[in-house]
Amino acid sequence: MTQSYDVVDLIRTKRDGGTLSSAQISWLIGAYTEGTVADEQMSALAMAILLRGMSRAETAQWTTAMINSGERMDFSALTRSDGRRRLTADKHSTGGVGDKITLPLAPLVASFCVPVPQLSGRGLGHTGGTLDKLESIPGWRAALSNQEILHQLDTVGAVICAAGSGLAPADKKLYALRDVTGTVESIPLIASSIMSKKIAEGTDALVLDVKVGTGAFMRTDDDAAELARTMVALGTDAGVRTTALLTEMNTPLGLTSGNAVEVEESMEVLAGGGPADVVELTVELAREMLAGVGITDVDPVENLRNGKAMDTWRAMIAAQGGDPDAPLPKPQHEHTITAEDSGTLARLDAYGVGIAAWRLGAGRARKEDPVQAAAGVRLHAKPGDTVTAGQPLITLCTDDQSRLPRAQEALSGAVEVIDGAVVENAGLIKARVAAEDL
Amino acid sequence: MTQSYDVVDLIRTKRDGGTLSSAQISWLIGAYTEGTVADEQMSALAMAILLRGMSRAETAQWTTAMINSGERMDFSALTRSDGRRRLTADKHSTGGVGDKITLPLAPLVASFCVPVPQLSGRGLGHTGGTLDKLESIPGWRAALSNQEILHQLDTVGAVICAAGSGLAPADKKLYALRDVTGTVESIPLIASSIMSKKIAEGTDALVLDVKVGTGAFMRTDDDAAELARTMVALGTDAGVRTTALLTEMNTPLGLTSGNAVEVEESMEVLAGGGPADVVELTVELAREMLAGVGITDVDPVENLRNGKAMDTWRAMIAAQGGDPDAPLPKPQHEHTITAEDSGTLARLDAYGVGIAAWRLGAGRARKEDPVQAAAGVRLHAKPGDTVTAGQPLITLCTDDQSRLPRAQEALSGAVEVIDGAVVENAGLIKARVAAEDL
Repeated sequence: MTQSYDVVDLIRTKRDGGTLSSAQISWLIGAYTEGTVADEQMSALAMAILLRGMSRAETAQWTTAMINSGERMDFSALTRSDGRRRLTADKHSTGGVGDKITLPLAPLVASFCVPVPQLSGRGLGHTGGTLDKLESIPGWRAALSNQEILHQLDTVGAVICAAGSGLAPADKKLYALRDVTGTVESIPLIASSIMSKKIAEGTDALVLDVKVGTGAFMRTDDDAAELARTMVALGTDAGVRTTALLTEMNTPLGLTSGNAVEVEESMEVLAGGGPADVVELTVELAREMLAGVGITDVDPVENLRNGKAMDTWRAMIAAQGGDPDAPLPKPQHEHTITAEDSGTLARLDAYGVGIAAWRLGAGRARKEDPVQAAAGVRLHAKPGDTVTAGQPLITLCTDDQSRLPRAQEALSGAVEVIDGAVVENAGLIKARVAAEDL
Repeated sequence: MTQSYDVVDLIRTKRDGGTLSSAQISWLIGAYTEGTVADEQMSALAMAILLRGMSRAETAQWTTAMINSGERMDFSALTRSDGRRRLTADKHSTGGVGDKITLPLAPLVASFCVPVPQLSGRGLGHTGGTLDKLESIPGWRAALSNQEILHQLDTVGAVICAAGSGLAPADKKLYALRDVTGTVESIPLIASSIMSKKIAEGTDALVLDVKVGTGAFMRTDDDAAELARTMVALGTDAGVRTTALLTEMNTPLGLTSGNAVEVEESMEVLAGGGPADVVELTVELAREMLAGVGITDVDPVENLRNGKAMDTWRAMIAAQGGDPDAPLPKPQHEHTITAEDSGTLARLDAYGVGIAAWRLGAGRARKEDPVQAAAGVRLHAKPGDTVTAGQPLITLCTDDQSRLPRAQEALSGAVEVIDGAVVENAGLIKARVAAEDL
């Protein structure tokens, strides 16, 4: 028999700076999931946690309790021809503008015979959703059964699909509550929300891409590093080989932000081309995932060049009903913004671009809203590039012309051209956090 | 047309240490009362307020908004024979053990021709409720209409009755929420809860008895002083002549704690006798109330001695259906605890005595529970008194013998007899706060 507690006592403990025990957290999450602890009690506790923090042990127990609220996936049936288990590798990004990395990354890693079960979400707000992007491919479907996922991992190696509702239902309920009560911005709660789902998905290795900058959820290096350390600790404590990269998100990744436009750019990368920053991040994250399952003697760049990653992409899209050769949707309206001055492009703000793409129809304001497959933004220059007055800088794409003015508004102040000075490039990958750094 | 706000923005503002505007607070309380702002949002905000505080201006606006959520009482119809308005005086105690002061105080002040509209509550937890005490008088009823209150103020001068549900309904809803979400202990929220009801009651002068000690809600002088200053500021800003006394509550007031036993002791005071501490506090609070309506040339002690206060008490009880001469209920069981050692009684802990009286049946755990009229505690000595081993110290009264063991348990450790040393008496009234002290 499990002990029960007075939830008001637990709220008071956290409110006054105390620590909750494992048994208390376990009871609390269970009672909240089944409705014994009311929403108004959980939101008061979430605010106390946001303002008082949680210890590493509390955060780990919170995560475990959320995992235990639902089912866990099991990939132990995946075996090699010699009968040994095939270890799986997964990646999670905290979200950024133009972040299509999952699209080339999953088939790239799978092309080295490492199964990649990439359970993803839809976009909400100014950062896009992986599933929304892939749905711009005619015929492609996001919903797979657990059996279908396992089969596709075994045959193709890579799956990008919707996470089932059976994983960490406590997190789903709590996230919806935090969203309406001003309690989203707590690092322990963000970390446990992400990691409960990733651990429940049953991956063996995990790389976290923690974005920092104007277009990211974390605006400062300190916050991003703390989130990264918290998540690496949670993964490590749960037996998942976890590392994190802190990556720059003041500028959009690549030259596109939207749905079909990002699929197109991802395919350029898989074909051995594509923007340098997208290639760099895809390759570095692939190295982390491969190392996580013990493969350190291969170069991911090779499989981008030799077509193996592209072959896996085509098989992955086809396995989920998509036509990898079908033309992608084109927007009904395009509008190009040109440079007002000549000089060096000093700044192209990720947040402004993300909001513009969102307002053009690439994203949604409420989770039931539809998105436009062809909506988004194409960039014609990146910070550091020399530009000439009158040259194209940004092309806005949408099916709905009335959306253009508010998208343009989002970009006012997002672009800065300076006179001749050299822009210092801070580098895309700012830091790496592994278990041994904790 | 009133502006509306995004409640999540308001929660975030307070969470991050910002200040809410008058318009924001006014909208918020209105939206919460009508249900547009949900309980889970208000509880998160209450936690943020508890941990971040509110400014004097925010607290004042919060109080005003709660007053505006309901009706206000109006005593301007009370006139003297020369046609001038009769100013009313009221008192509020933050609650203590053995605190029966309202019972002698209301008729004492009214005996000087000052109307006293004393709207009171029932007890919950270890501090008793004024209405519960008076209901031990056969026939007495707590529920009066506004018309009956006005008539009784005009004819008798003193009314002690239940506060109608029309006063500050936002406070009622918010208090019930705070009670289950660990957000009671916020000084601005406590102050605005008390003062919204008192200001809505429409009194001209108000004295606050802010208790501090083991048997009180405020355990430290600093917290009590802050609460007193906050409430005096709120009253003053609302045009109510408000003062506060900080009074000691480590030891129960008087020699009784319960229902009928406290009525009995109150009548001793009205008859010119009674314990010195109860008399002292009654007289000092009466002076504050009289001064609040401009009467400074009378001595309250006089009307206790000459029977005028007792006459008003009898009229007040009779006007509400009570028989002032009826014998009060006697308990079916009594159990006396005696002194184990001889010496000086150094400590008689208010909290232990309050819990004992509560467990004997004088109070309730849930608001729908009944109370026993005859349940309570009689004390035979007070700190500073010399006691002899074997002499009676405390008598427990109840109608239900099975309640005795847990009541005795509450008193273990509550009594301390020391060998001969003199106990320093800190004094009952610790400080006074008036508008000019802010």
